[in-house]
Amino acid sequence: MLIIPGAGKRGETFEYDLAIIGSGPAGLTAGIYSSRAGLQAVIVEKNAAGGLAAEAPYIENYPGFIGIKGQELASRMKEHAKNYLPIFEMSPISKIEKQDTGKFFIESHQGNFSVSSIIFATGTTHKHLNIKGEKEFSGKGISYCVTCDGPFFKDHDVIIIGGGNSGAAAAIYMSGLAKKVTILECMPRTMCENAYTKKIEELGLEYIKNAKVTEIFGDDVVRGLRYVDKSIGKEYELKADGVFIYIGLSPQSELAKSIGCQLNNGGYIKVDDKMRTSVPFVYAAGDVTGGVAQIIVAAAQGAIAALSCFEDLSLK
Amino acid sequence: MLIIPGAGKRGETFEYDLAIIGSGPAGLTAGIYSSRAGLQAVIVEKNAAGGLAAEAPYIENYPGFIGIKGQELASRMKEHAKNYLPIFEMSPISKIEKQDTGKFFIESHQGNFSVSSIIFATGTTHKHLNIKGEKEFSGKGISYCVTCDGPFFKDHDVIIIGGGNSGAAAAIYMSGLAKKVTILECMPRTMCENAYTKKIEELGLEYIKNAKVTEIFGDDVVRGLRYVDKSIGKEYELKADGVFIYIGLSPQSELAKSIGCQLNNGGYIKVDDKMRTSVPFVYAAGDVTGGVAQIIVAAAQGAIAALSCFEDLSLK
Repeated sequence: MLIIPGAGKRGETFEYDLAIIGSGPAGLTAGIYSSRAGLQAVIVEKNAAGGLAAEAPYIENYPGFIGIKGQELASRMKEHAKNYLPIFEMSPISKIEKQDTGKFFIESHQGNFSVSSIIFATGTTHKHLNIKGEKEFSGKGISYCVTCDGPFFKDHDVIIIGGGNSGAAAAIYMSGLAKKVTILECMPRTMCENAYTKKIEELGLEYIKNAKVTEIFGDDVVRGLRYVDKSIGKEYELKADGVFIYIGLSPQSELAKSIGCQLNNGGYIKVDDKMRTSVPFVYAAGDVTGGVAQIIVAAAQGAIAALSCFEDLSLK
Repeated sequence: MLIIPGAGKRGETFEYDLAIIGSGPAGLTAGIYSSRAGLQAVIVEKNAAGGLAAEAPYIENYPGFIGIKGQELASRMKEHAKNYLPIFEMSPISKIEKQDTGKFFIESHQGNFSVSSIIFATGTTHKHLNIKGEKEFSGKGISYCVTCDGPFFKDHDVIIIGGGNSGAAAAIYMSGLAKKVTILECMPRTMCENAYTKKIEELGLEYIKNAKVTEIFGDDVVRGLRYVDKSIGKEYELKADGVFIYIGLSPQSELAKSIGCQLNNGGYIKVDDKMRTSVPFVYAAGDVTGGVAQIIVAAAQGAIAALSCFEDLSLK
């Protein structure tokens, strides 16, 4: 049943009941559920399977695993889904069109697809600070992923910008590698779960509140940053070899918008409680729909979207 | 942090931020999330932890596990939750009262609790057929759980009443034990997922549609049953040593109702998309709220309920 990713000739068109776009926890779960229900489904993924879950240093709140590396959980979910349906990785989509036949035509790098329904599980990407030095030093000391780039900063000083759960987890991860880890949070209060706060205290990491970062500076590479303490209006300079930015996420909803799916104010895809979008036979699941960005919730939404899709196609 | 189940003296009152009632996937996940968020929470369970998930013979659609016994997944989730909070098992609740202080007083077998908030994760129980012989032969050949009682029927003939997913999974499970397995479904079509249908065909199990069971008969123990083929109105008799009833589930919503939570038509607890019930500081998650009865969805709802509870108590 498995089609090896990349096996489709470019330009060739494959017929499926359902295309699932994106292969994080939502997309992979939608794949498991739709295939088990009897649909011929396919997953199309622009990068490698796993989504942002694969970037999480360590996950302690996916029920059934007291603790597991994001990469390992993502890989288990991918193997699970591959038991049921093909996953086309490294296959960015150039366009989606609704055809007169009622089918959707999807043009992707690894092949084209003609499908009766779509589940968007396209997730989110890292938000940018849009400050001086951010673009200039990207890849030269600035990163958005500790599991990807953390080891480059072994025994160096790093700063994590953003003190929410993902920033806190990144800081804890880096504490095992870096010489010194500092967390900067722009809000006046601690923004991560109590479980993280405790760990941060235990590890003796500094968590600075009210810190609005204004500039990242360096020469060939990052050397530090400047921030304003908003409570007193005073500017500070911190030296660092690495800066990790964890200030939130932006929904990847452009493709859904291109075929008419309504978005809400934040740009997330609007869905009802059965994960149906405003376009018939088009569904969305996971972080791209907003709400609490949790792996367990994304997976559940993938299951619900798949079951709704199966129901709608059965009654068609 | 862990209180050994049963360690509370009867009659003693424990103070907590949150009581989670029920310890299936929804309750256990609510426990993990609420504790990680910083709440002092406790789980109160009338039987053993795990809920109906523990009864599932084999689970193939919980992402991350290609296949796992229900008992094992339930046990992993229980161990996971026990890392964070106490679970009082074998502790049925006799009453819940809202007090003038705004707190809820919970009287249970293993001790009493005074709490600021409640999450109902009480799940569902097996529905009954309410036909002749059902009560009489309960425990004498009639059962509602193959993983509990299946082994008693090794090398015997069994009938599964109900051909939905849970009935199909039960039949597949029993095919490894029993001499002959027959499935009776009252609807005119196959009611389980395609993945199950294929397996049932592969195993050569009989799946009889349109079969309305009218009586279970026997002497000291079950000997068989009678059913009417609704498509032709003719009655048939089938011999069997064991009858497993898998015709659906009833919500366990009485306790929630007793403190004023609104229920919907099916008797499920009414919740909004943040799992809030109609009573402030009272939440519900999992099968007791209706919707698709899937482990992954129950767990996600437990997470959402816990996060809503944390948010509401933080702003109180």
